[in-house]
Amino acid sequence: MSDQPGPGLLRSLFQPRTVAVIGASDDPAKLSGRPVDYLQRFGFAGRIVPVNARREEVQGLRAFPGIAAYRETPVDLAIIALPAPAVAAELRACARAGVPLAVVFASGFAEAAGEGARLQRELREICAETGIRLLGPNCLGGIATAGGVVPTFTSALDGDVRLTPGPVAIVSQSGAFGTFLFSAAQAAGMGIGYFANTGNEVDVTAPELMCELLESDDVGVVLGYLEGISDPAALLRAGRAAARARKPLVLVKVGVTEEGARAAAAHTGARPVEDGPVDDVLDQLGVVRAGGLEEMIDIAGLLAAGRRPAGDRLAVLTMSGGAGVLLTDGAIAAGMSVPAWSPRWRDRVAEVVPPYGSARNPLDITGSFLKSPEILERVLDVALEHPDTDVITVLLGNADRESDRVVETLTAAYARTSKPMLVVWTGGSGRPRELLARAGVPVYTDPARAVRALSALMRHALRPAPERVPARDPGGRGIADLARELEAADGADGGGRPIVTAHDGAFGPMISIDPAAPVGRRTHGTAPVDPAHARRMLARAGFDAPPGRAGLLSRLSAFAAGPGGARGRVRLGDAPAGGEPVDPQPRVEG
Amino acid sequence: MSDQPGPGLLRSLFQPRTVAVIGASDDPAKLSGRPVDYLQRFGFAGRIVPVNARREEVQGLRAFPGIAAYRETPVDLAIIALPAPAVAAELRACARAGVPLAVVFASGFAEAAGEGARLQRELREICAETGIRLLGPNCLGGIATAGGVVPTFTSALDGDVRLTPGPVAIVSQSGAFGTFLFSAAQAAGMGIGYFANTGNEVDVTAPELMCELLESDDVGVVLGYLEGISDPAALLRAGRAAARARKPLVLVKVGVTEEGARAAAAHTGARPVEDGPVDDVLDQLGVVRAGGLEEMIDIAGLLAAGRRPAGDRLAVLTMSGGAGVLLTDGAIAAGMSVPAWSPRWRDRVAEVVPPYGSARNPLDITGSFLKSPEILERVLDVALEHPDTDVITVLLGNADRESDRVVETLTAAYARTSKPMLVVWTGGSGRPRELLARAGVPVYTDPARAVRALSALMRHALRPAPERVPARDPGGRGIADLARELEAADGADGGGRPIVTAHDGAFGPMISIDPAAPVGRRTHGTAPVDPAHARRMLARAGFDAPPGRAGLLSRLSAFAAGPGGARGRVRLGDAPAGGEPVDPQPRVEG
Repeated sequence: MSDQPGPGLLRSLFQPRTVAVIGASDDPAKLSGRPVDYLQRFGFAGRIVPVNARREEVQGLRAFPGIAAYRETPVDLAIIALPAPAVAAELRACARAGVPLAVVFASGFAEAAGEGARLQRELREICAETGIRLLGPNCLGGIATAGGVVPTFTSALDGDVRLTPGPVAIVSQSGAFGTFLFSAAQAAGMGIGYFANTGNEVDVTAPELMCELLESDDVGVVLGYLEGISDPAALLRAGRAAARARKPLVLVKVGVTEEGARAAAAHTGARPVEDGPVDDVLDQLGVVRAGGLEEMIDIAGLLAAGRRPAGDRLAVLTMSGGAGVLLTDGAIAAGMSVPAWSPRWRDRVAEVVPPYGSARNPLDITGSFLKSPEILERVLDVALEHPDTDVITVLLGNADRESDRVVETLTAAYARTSKPMLVVWTGGSGRPRELLARAGVPVYTDPARAVRALSALMRHALRPAPERVPARDPGGRGIADLARELEAADGADGGGRPIVTAHDGAFGPMISIDPAAPVGRRTHGTAPVDPAHARRMLARAGFDAPPGRAGLLSRLSAFAAGPGGARGRVRLGDAPAGGEPVDPQPRVEG
Repeated sequence: MSDQPGPGLLRSLFQPRTVAVIGASDDPAKLSGRPVDYLQRFGFAGRIVPVNARREEVQGLRAFPGIAAYRETPVDLAIIALPAPAVAAELRACARAGVPLAVVFASGFAEAAGEGARLQRELREICAETGIRLLGPNCLGGIATAGGVVPTFTSALDGDVRLTPGPVAIVSQSGAFGTFLFSAAQAAGMGIGYFANTGNEVDVTAPELMCELLESDDVGVVLGYLEGISDPAALLRAGRAAARARKPLVLVKVGVTEEGARAAAAHTGARPVEDGPVDDVLDQLGVVRAGGLEEMIDIAGLLAAGRRPAGDRLAVLTMSGGAGVLLTDGAIAAGMSVPAWSPRWRDRVAEVVPPYGSARNPLDITGSFLKSPEILERVLDVALEHPDTDVITVLLGNADRESDRVVETLTAAYARTSKPMLVVWTGGSGRPRELLARAGVPVYTDPARAVRALSALMRHALRPAPERVPARDPGGRGIADLARELEAADGADGGGRPIVTAHDGAFGPMISIDPAAPVGRRTHGTAPVDPAHARRMLARAGFDAPPGRAGLLSRLSAFAAGPGGARGRVRLGDAPAGGEPVDPQPRVEG
């Protein structure tokens, strides 16, 4: 982040030199008292400017009667800690004083009944008129762990909390979910660099922050929680920024079911969105989608370690044959491989492990290494050398008594390889897990959880880079004519016959495929789609795509890209001569 | 268990009055020294008889030169803690001395190369000849927590371990996996009554123990880990015992994939088994299948609480709108419902929660209850009264400072209702989770994990009791004739046309259905199948079963039940007049 010029959103939020707290209370337990307390307690090195018309001092700091009364340094960030009806006036005052960014905590806006919607509109108008940026309202602010920059009232910083910096950033539309994630991740030993909660998103949106964080040098992984797609264009930008930087963007997007979407709408006032197109577009962008909070932490732990596999071949070292089988089952079901080792390599393992173990892969080293620690060391050596292994997984459990030496062996092995490596240590006191996490070795409590993380790592690392497909001018031709032309030029064969729609959706121009009844579902992509995503769309829609079909779809989608592109509905895959559009007059769909 | 007459397997293993330890070492750190050490440390009240020809005393107890030399009390259980080649002779000696059950720790039998297979055969022969029962070899024994009965050398009892008794029993073919599960469950505050590891299963099998435990009064839930189906008949008995007692049997069965099955075979020497038929039969039996270790603990926690829902309708109380949506999404996707509350009940909630919350269900009570604890109390009251709620779920996070009072409120509410209720408490120090677990309230760290547990609870509790379908005598008729007769009698309509095979499989007479290409998969049931399972088979095979089809399949399966039943292959669903067997001569399949 430090290399970026100008003020910028992230600089204002995460690297301010002067922070004003408007409505700052002298009582550090109050919501409006917490920011000053937290900024002082977590060692913020800049200036803290409490604004409170009724006090000369707040929590030991000189207070000012209004933002305008403070003129010593430029205020980079203003926290407005006042109830909803009082926010607009202060936001205007901040804008006048040249403050680039305000964080608004108060609820009682669009998510509430009554006056809320009007008050929110007013904030939006002030931002548009004055150019001041706004995080919130109905949000609990942000955290930059390294600098003790804590413009927030989250109770997650209550009590005896130490902040652990690191390459992971969290952006959440939900405050509570975001802080649960933040706290659980920190408790698991994961270093978090930045946290932000966007709430009602009057101005700054979660995807905008994700995009900027993905472009920051000190961020390696971004975790996001989304309830609505308030800003589809920014989400596309974020996805593309992630692909460009080869950094994982891991999202929990809720509101998947109709009931969930309704509940999400009740929560932040976001409009319910159908999940299918969102899921397909996230897939097109290469976003890793997680199903829950711990799954997100599990995935981030492996991705944040920074190592990327060259392939999907696991070496499984296990002290429990059973745990080895469980992990193997899960890995195979998730599309990875656990190849049996060749006799030459098997022999090297068999020299060390007892005869009731196995040298085949999974390498069942049995519990004997607890008495003879060199067994683990030597099998690890062999696994690190083994050329046909892309990822090393080690499965252990309990064994607290012997854990210090085992942890040392594992940490040393981790340092000797540049391949991804993880440890599953089930049961026991948890201390070995803490030691491993502190040493930077990804560690899990359960083989099933490690499999979910490995699967996300593979999806991220082994995915081909998106191909650039330039948009093409349809030159006045309809989608059916274009499809016929392309099919004739390609000599594309029949079979499959997917029905394709080019239309405008939340993400701009899109291409969709109707399912091949009775299997598959309607699938989507933002136009243009590259051949790889076209193949995924065809597969998810239930088609056995004949060769060339995905390329055809990709080229057709190029004519739909852009606002003036071709729209309409056509059946692909008819023989070139008999090209038979379902709907001869291309129809533009809303 | 206490009500059972006679010695019995469980009595010998879990309630012995006298335990002999053959090969007992004086060194409590050695594998062969641990049983005597553990039995003394965990307060076993019966007699411990060390057998060691070279010592007069072992760990402060009088030692005997052989099992025959001890004659003071009947030995209920002998632990043979000797290497593989020395086991057979001692097993014979135990049989001669009238010992009903021996536990054999040693590895080096069928799972190892060389002499192992022969040594294992010898043990099997001794059991058959003498009637002595044998647990193992290659096993680490058992644990009955309440009596300090710990005939085991597991390192899970090393160090400062306290045993928490409870209604959950664990039976594992894998020693390490079993003890990981035991330790992780105990660490999560779950009370475990019994633990056993069966290893190579020369005689006593995991399903046999499961069956007996399910029939014990003091066991409420049985957790099992299986690698192979060594004893299909006993597994059928266990499943039926579970259904009869309405007690959940929760299984992790590994070796699902080909690679996993091969790895499992390497582990305990079990033959690889195709998973499809096993999965279908477990489903037919009503067994709850779990995907991993923590999922098993999560499921067991809710099931062991003993409460069963009358329906699938959740009330979701949440301090985080986002977590509420996540849980709702998961619950709906898993087939449960989160119905919106009626205006009357919504009004009662809206009286209490702030306007930026929601009274609709999920009930978003927001974080305001941290300052005003009566909000949680009153909304809980309403939820407990709400007649259209079957399960109450409460989602919280962090908030350590306020947790004592919140835990009290939750515990009191739990005591006031007989409906299932669970708490998700994410993040924070973990102390509130500990307090809740200690008070018997099922508690989770993540909404996604709670959903998996709820889903298992629903599958178990809301599943209709299996219908009894009596076997019928085919009277010499082939399967095709029987199908035609049944179709004519029923006037069953066409459509669907599944191909059904009646054959003999691992579980005895079975019925299978070929998939409806290109969807579905081959599905199975042990004959006879009841109409409910026939419906599931048809659905999994990809058929839209017309009315009557499942009943027809069930009645047909009745003719295949039993060793002398009809076997062969037939296409169902042709019009009665044109009944057209695929294979006119019924063919018996192996």
